[in-house]
Amino acid sequence: MNLIDNLKWRYATKKMNGKAVPEEKLQYILEAAQLAPSSSGLQPYSVLVVTNKELKEKMRPIAWDQSQLTDASHVLVFAAWENYTEEKIKEVFKRTTDERGLPETAMDDYRARLWGMYSQMPEEWHFHHAAKQAYIAFGLAIAAAAEQKVDATPMEGFDAAAMDELLNLKEKGLRSVLVLPLGYRDETNDWLVNMKKVRTPKEDFFIELN
Amino acid sequence: MNLIDNLKWRYATKKMNGKAVPEEKLQYILEAAQLAPSSSGLQPYSVLVVTNKELKEKMRPIAWDQSQLTDASHVLVFAAWENYTEEKIKEVFKRTTDERGLPETAMDDYRARLWGMYSQMPEEWHFHHAAKQAYIAFGLAIAAAAEQKVDATPMEGFDAAAMDELLNLKEKGLRSVLVLPLGYRDETNDWLVNMKKVRTPKEDFFIELN
Repeated sequence: MNLIDNLKWRYATKKMNGKAVPEEKLQYILEAAQLAPSSSGLQPYSVLVVTNKELKEKMRPIAWDQSQLTDASHVLVFAAWENYTEEKIKEVFKRTTDERGLPETAMDDYRARLWGMYSQMPEEWHFHHAAKQAYIAFGLAIAAAAEQKVDATPMEGFDAAAMDELLNLKEKGLRSVLVLPLGYRDETNDWLVNMKKVRTPKEDFFIELN
Repeated sequence: MNLIDNLKWRYATKKMNGKAVPEEKLQYILEAAQLAPSSSGLQPYSVLVVTNKELKEKMRPIAWDQSQLTDASHVLVFAAWENYTEEKIKEVFKRTTDERGLPETAMDDYRARLWGMYSQMPEEWHFHHAAKQAYIAFGLAIAAAAEQKVDATPMEGFDAAAMDELLNLKEKGLRSVLVLPLGYRDETNDWLVNMKKVRTPKEDFFIELN
């Protein structure tokens, strides 16, 4: 099955059956998130991998009591940097020049321009910008799960402030953005499993400028 | 090649060779964007497909004079809704119930709750929220291109206001968010083509809560 087939196979699973995702499949899904492109390669977010039962039980009421939080074997939380800092950018660029065998100064001009721009942006811009990058990784993790025939439920619907507090994200300079329970569909009890996938028709979704 | 292999193969192509992407591959990439999940299935964005030579030439200075704008055969522009409205949400939900053969009222409660929430959010929240959804489709289009061995350059670096004006997006209720030139790498002249792909190491990127 190719990517399109996998995207057609997947759906926002409403009821999971409690079966655990094997470690190998989990690692595949995580690697797809890690390989996601991001603005200037900064990857301004972390991915939390929650398997702890009590923690998942505490997360559930924070996410509108959705049952996937406890029926999923793994719950991923995508948490974006609260802000960019010169130090964080330096760290990423140093790793880049190191791994590419370039002089440490090779990206200095680019870094100065980038930080010149970012440092003038308001605090809220930083978080929005970082959060947007996390959505790319989120999409690729969903695609990777589908390729592995693992079900997933993309979730924005949760109390982010409560989630941040539960997971101690503030002290890590992070804010929760997206949640992705991973598991297996309960075919008997999921009302959405047999519903047709509906998308905006091509003629409304695409605008051709020839 | 699987998704991970494709994500390793791709890179943010810096120099393209002018070769055209075949129509069949383009349609495949567009379909991946169209199939992307979005919050409540609203798909609050459009994808512009620009092949017009003069238009691409006018887009280039708006995007920091990056050569991919004119060397790509197709330039995709992901443009998000300026805001959600009750009418737009009604249209999507009506299509959903129609295509699923459900009573037109089947999603009324959900829609009322959703609009009750969205209608209280500030204007800028609407655009940010819609824009974030477009990043998911953007990531999947990049993955689809890589599967088709088509090169792409993910771009946020452009003057969005100038782009909106050039493409008459305001009158469509849209704002440009992301640009994705599609074409083929110029292996001889692209400085990035042989550089190692660098990513945040697993131990820094993932946080396990067992």
